[in-house]
Amino acid sequence: MMAAQVTICDVGPRDGLQNEAETLAPEVRAELVNRLAAAGLRSIEAVSFVSAERVPQMAGAEDVVTAIERREGVTYSGLVLNEKGYERLAAAGLDAVHFTLAATDSFNRRNANRLVDESVAELERIETDLPVSVSISVSFGCPFDGEVETATVMALAERCVQAGAQEIVFADTIGVGVPRQARELVERGGGLGVPVGVHLHNTRNTGFANAYAALEAGAAVFESSVGGLGGCPFAPRATGNIATEDLVYLLEGEGVETGVDLDALIAVSEWLEEVLGRPLPGQVYRAGASVAG
Amino acid sequence: MMAAQVTICDVGPRDGLQNEAETLAPEVRAELVNRLAAAGLRSIEAVSFVSAERVPQMAGAEDVVTAIERREGVTYSGLVLNEKGYERLAAAGLDAVHFTLAATDSFNRRNANRLVDESVAELERIETDLPVSVSISVSFGCPFDGEVETATVMALAERCVQAGAQEIVFADTIGVGVPRQARELVERGGGLGVPVGVHLHNTRNTGFANAYAALEAGAAVFESSVGGLGGCPFAPRATGNIATEDLVYLLEGEGVETGVDLDALIAVSEWLEEVLGRPLPGQVYRAGASVAG
Repeated sequence: MMAAQVTICDVGPRDGLQNEAETLAPEVRAELVNRLAAAGLRSIEAVSFVSAERVPQMAGAEDVVTAIERREGVTYSGLVLNEKGYERLAAAGLDAVHFTLAATDSFNRRNANRLVDESVAELERIETDLPVSVSISVSFGCPFDGEVETATVMALAERCVQAGAQEIVFADTIGVGVPRQARELVERGGGLGVPVGVHLHNTRNTGFANAYAALEAGAAVFESSVGGLGGCPFAPRATGNIATEDLVYLLEGEGVETGVDLDALIAVSEWLEEVLGRPLPGQVYRAGASVAG
Repeated sequence: MMAAQVTICDVGPRDGLQNEAETLAPEVRAELVNRLAAAGLRSIEAVSFVSAERVPQMAGAEDVVTAIERREGVTYSGLVLNEKGYERLAAAGLDAVHFTLAATDSFNRRNANRLVDESVAELERIETDLPVSVSISVSFGCPFDGEVETATVMALAERCVQAGAQEIVFADTIGVGVPRQARELVERGGGLGVPVGVHLHNTRNTGFANAYAALEAGAAVFESSVGGLGGCPFAPRATGNIATEDLVYLLEGEGVETGVDLDALIAVSEWLEEVLGRPLPGQVYRAGASVAG
């Protein structure tokens, strides 16, 4: 059953920028967050609290948070991999916790330096009044283990809900997913008792078809990056999240309310293109949103 | 009702190459056709019989046809806009007629130098034993008139069937379509009594979502270009057909039989990239088809 309204969470300031060769200053990263909020995004993954040695692009998360101009009605979240990351997030004063773990040990070891079981234990240790969303990486396929069974992902999702997750996001971290998987994950995720969503990459041009399949299956949350920024430093060739403005174009065309001002969001991508000095993978900001033109 | 098997028609040698700045020699264009057939494509739009003055990239269509090495089981077609084009196609000895007209007078005047009614009259005048597929341009939206009503497109499709069309293809010529439209056109097209299909561009990143929606609605034919070549010289910024190999990746992932050897098709895009001297818009040929890398 398709939702008439969905939440788009822009992960560009985190998943997008962490994959740029250039590390942007915290003020510029905060400005990106502020521009996204001004364009109508109600959910923004602003930073990640991970090791600055491992992901230098995300250093200075606390400085980014300080420079954000909070807007009423916007949820500002940060990514954490463990209890220590959560403590930094809570001290910085963000609104929501985005905890990430992977569906496979191989990937989780690379990304979080832990086995999946150890990450679930970290999640259990986090005692908080903040809402906790858990994103399950490589839910659609793992660069080391190949395709991941839906049953494996669902069993892990159930454990995460038991450990306190109030939302589950199935992530196609390396962009190998097809609509069949998006549909299955979201449909079966409907039995978890919490809202479910998808985090999609467009590496093989299936990202928007997966978004549409997830929408039809009842997904409540979609994670995307303004301009189609993003990827994963530990998953080679995993280019680009689905572009938020292209997702908005699709969703609005389907009659779904996103709350985003598409023209304002396109202007953010144009600004970001100048900041980064290269064209972004998003298509709508280059082609234009209007039919006649 | 989703089909277990569909026909992919590669329009790269026509819609793709007609939008390249460089005009390729007929032998190279024929080689592209031969490579596509060798990769398992069963339907290839090899040439168009239009004015060489208006579309110099398509000059020498007869020489292309002569240089094609015909394969058993492959349908080689050509695009025509009128009776005169059909006569050239018949003389050249192709297997099928791809007649194109637009859903709006504004676009048809630019593309075919005729009103829509005059194009329907041309279609009626074509007396042939060859199968005739009719593609309706700007079915999803027109760069001059804006969104096109599904009812308008369906009324024209019915007239085309009466005039002899044995297949109807709804074309998103400028890549503005959303899944809702693909679904509506294909579902309502089911009442025409002939197979229906879609011709999609990925200008705003909705092309593959539209393909998936069309598949679910029962489309039998998909038009795409190897590597994502294509566009329309009279529709500014209408970049790229959906890439055939990316479509194959999606369809095979959904369990649909295409007959195409994906690795062989990726090799065609790699060859084409060298011929044209630039990266193509397709993603699968760059990211690789396999999950585990």
